[in-house]
Amino acid sequence: MRRQLIVVSNRGPVSYARGPDGERISRRAGGGLTTALRGLLSLHDVTWIASAITDEDRTLAGETLDESTREGAGFRLRLVGHERQAYDRFYNVVANPMLWFIQHYLWELAYTPAIDAAFHAAWDEGYVAINAGFAAAVLEELDDQPDAAVFFHDYHLYLAPRFVRNAMPDAALVHFTHVPWPQPDYWHVLPQHIRHAIHDGMLANDVVAFHTERWRQNFLDSVRDIVGDVPAHALTAPISVDCDEFERLAESEQVLAAEAEIVARRPDKLVVRVDRTDPSKNIVRGFRAFELLLEAHPELRRRVGMLALLDPSRQDIPEYAEYLGAIQREARRVNDRFQEFSWLPIELEIADDFPTSVAAYKQFDVLLVNATMDGMNLVAKEAPLVNTRNGAVVLSENAGAHAELGDWVESVNPYDVEAQAVALYRALTLGEAERRRRLEAIREHVREHDVNAWIERQLAVLDAIGASARR
Amino acid sequence: MRRQLIVVSNRGPVSYARGPDGERISRRAGGGLTTALRGLLSLHDVTWIASAITDEDRTLAGETLDESTREGAGFRLRLVGHERQAYDRFYNVVANPMLWFIQHYLWELAYTPAIDAAFHAAWDEGYVAINAGFAAAVLEELDDQPDAAVFFHDYHLYLAPRFVRNAMPDAALVHFTHVPWPQPDYWHVLPQHIRHAIHDGMLANDVVAFHTERWRQNFLDSVRDIVGDVPAHALTAPISVDCDEFERLAESEQVLAAEAEIVARRPDKLVVRVDRTDPSKNIVRGFRAFELLLEAHPELRRRVGMLALLDPSRQDIPEYAEYLGAIQREARRVNDRFQEFSWLPIELEIADDFPTSVAAYKQFDVLLVNATMDGMNLVAKEAPLVNTRNGAVVLSENAGAHAELGDWVESVNPYDVEAQAVALYRALTLGEAERRRRLEAIREHVREHDVNAWIERQLAVLDAIGASARR
Repeated sequence: MRRQLIVVSNRGPVSYARGPDGERISRRAGGGLTTALRGLLSLHDVTWIASAITDEDRTLAGETLDESTREGAGFRLRLVGHERQAYDRFYNVVANPMLWFIQHYLWELAYTPAIDAAFHAAWDEGYVAINAGFAAAVLEELDDQPDAAVFFHDYHLYLAPRFVRNAMPDAALVHFTHVPWPQPDYWHVLPQHIRHAIHDGMLANDVVAFHTERWRQNFLDSVRDIVGDVPAHALTAPISVDCDEFERLAESEQVLAAEAEIVARRPDKLVVRVDRTDPSKNIVRGFRAFELLLEAHPELRRRVGMLALLDPSRQDIPEYAEYLGAIQREARRVNDRFQEFSWLPIELEIADDFPTSVAAYKQFDVLLVNATMDGMNLVAKEAPLVNTRNGAVVLSENAGAHAELGDWVESVNPYDVEAQAVALYRALTLGEAERRRRLEAIREHVREHDVNAWIERQLAVLDAIGASARR
Repeated sequence: MRRQLIVVSNRGPVSYARGPDGERISRRAGGGLTTALRGLLSLHDVTWIASAITDEDRTLAGETLDESTREGAGFRLRLVGHERQAYDRFYNVVANPMLWFIQHYLWELAYTPAIDAAFHAAWDEGYVAINAGFAAAVLEELDDQPDAAVFFHDYHLYLAPRFVRNAMPDAALVHFTHVPWPQPDYWHVLPQHIRHAIHDGMLANDVVAFHTERWRQNFLDSVRDIVGDVPAHALTAPISVDCDEFERLAESEQVLAAEAEIVARRPDKLVVRVDRTDPSKNIVRGFRAFELLLEAHPELRRRVGMLALLDPSRQDIPEYAEYLGAIQREARRVNDRFQEFSWLPIELEIADDFPTSVAAYKQFDVLLVNATMDGMNLVAKEAPLVNTRNGAVVLSENAGAHAELGDWVESVNPYDVEAQAVALYRALTLGEAERRRRLEAIREHVREHDVNAWIERQLAVLDAIGASARR
């Protein structure tokens, strides 16, 4: 059954620029959400609403553009033009770092955050205004297609559902949260009217969805605590990978070229990590754990190397800029201590280079995913799928992926650097049969629970509540 | 009914030293717990078990000493001698800052804590060992008085109840937690075996008690999450003040002298805060809020002053030493900005000076208690009891006292400096009748729910479970 769907997310699947000769160029966004929703685009009648980011985007704001996926599936794209100052406050003050830091338990609370007049203004004139702008665009689209179901995505869009619901009580609204949902005490960092508005906005949806039972349960606890009510439908639907597409990608020319480079210089055993330079990714402690491994096991020096492929992230935000500095300092410290001959303990590449990441996925002996908190973490699903060395996975117990893959990984407490060093050693010395058994179990699980299962799960619930959603 | 009780706490009610002529001097500890338990000492047959802290204490360790309260009530005191290194690890590595920071949500988590081999050793050879030492002392006392009920206190003693229970399945054990209990996600900062041991230790008690329903509910959630079980009896019993004693104290010579000094130099309107220099007390943001008040209301300059009486706390722990530095820097910054003529906006006194604190309680026009998290906060109960100026209270919604006093205070979100500035202004400009009404309501509540009510509540539950506790 082909449905009418309106997908709403801050970043869209396509962004525009002007080429050297003044012609319009469209650039597909690499983000996980577009990739994950590709199946939706090919099977259903989708209108995607997203922020106009570039200058060229802004000139197109308000129009409904005909776009298509790389595979040729058509969809409509509507860009929402925001006032620049409002968008900056929405994105760089409220969504990141405030909401991101709350949802990943990253405030130290003794000194920061200090919620001041500037933050209150950023909420009112930034986050609220941008959400109202998104809601207005959704309502215009619903005027044309009143039976379309609306899929809101993530922590940028907690308020838009309430604005839409108030104007259109019968709309079918779904919200998916891609990040962790913290427990109620931590939401209390926000002023009462703000934490209430966020939870009230979530309750305006017919369905809210989370990656794991842990985040779903936390949401039910916090919405009960803060609003005193719970939603009709709160479900778990773990995001996943388009396996065929990913395996094709792993054999692409770009990835093969990058892989050849890694093979040419790799040490005997390769520990790989692939992350954005985000404080929640726990990169500094990861390097410290690797140092403790080398300290405890001199026999591994010159034989094991860590390849850290890090995509620089949100450098307009001081906490992120500082974290990137701390990452570089920590890698340098470990390298200064142990580097000898041509062996560099930690090879750090700070770049947005997806082909090299996929190449590293194929080449790891140990994959380290030690996030302090993570909604899902797709690296833990993607990398085992294409790995060629029966690599082992060290996985944080606070990553959403751990709920699915926990039986086949070395589980670690992300704050415990000693335990991470021990887990790295165990992963490096695990017998080949056991490594193969685990890797195959992970692959089987990911193939069975792929990205289409994620989409189907949400659509099925939409069917089930169809009657009530269209009250 | 006179009962046999064994009270167990890290700090005892008395500590010993050698005087100038080599004679033994006993010094009564000023801490809240001794004061709170004074009623218990006078009515029941109490043996108190506490750590030997001073050198002289250590020479007395293992003996059972006959002691008496200031009022002449006799009790027995038993000091537990600990190995110095073990005690340092127990106190300065595990209990503070680790457990304290977890229970007050004070870790930033991106960089700290980094749980390393030193921390694991501090747990095994410090916290576990010291708790075992306490348990051994309890068991020896229980040999003499097998029907005595044991009252464990606070975050220093989470494991001792399990050690006692294992050796004496029929013992009657109660644990009171004086600090907040965080929600389960935050306990997950600790390695699995450590968070499990803490919750399992709590489950070894017949009764566990907390100041508020919020902390009690959080405990039930975390013990269910981490151990999968809940205790038979978890109750709330908000600690409180010995009102008569406190009012007598307010008229003592020492307090009257200190009050005269304050009166001689006080500005027209006085904002008072009295705290330990603990990151959870939120002193830096309090100064910032006071700055915002002066910025927004030039008419208040030279008329309003803040008196901050701060007891230096735990200066052996780097986070605490740094916090004291930040307090001084922030006060200096605000003073440098606004100070004129003889008017100093913030008067900072860093000293352990209880008489001056009580004098300030009598003299405040506004009392500021803005803790980021606080188990109870007795200042919010003590100060209104003796205030002579119909002063108003600005109180953090995260202080346990807020659950009782919330209707009669200006409530603030402790992270919101803008809201705190607004609340200070409201409190300063509240009409006298309303201030009097609120202050009287607080006093009436505190008198009705005094420290004896706190003790009776716990003893009553012990009676009720008597049969099952002595299975």
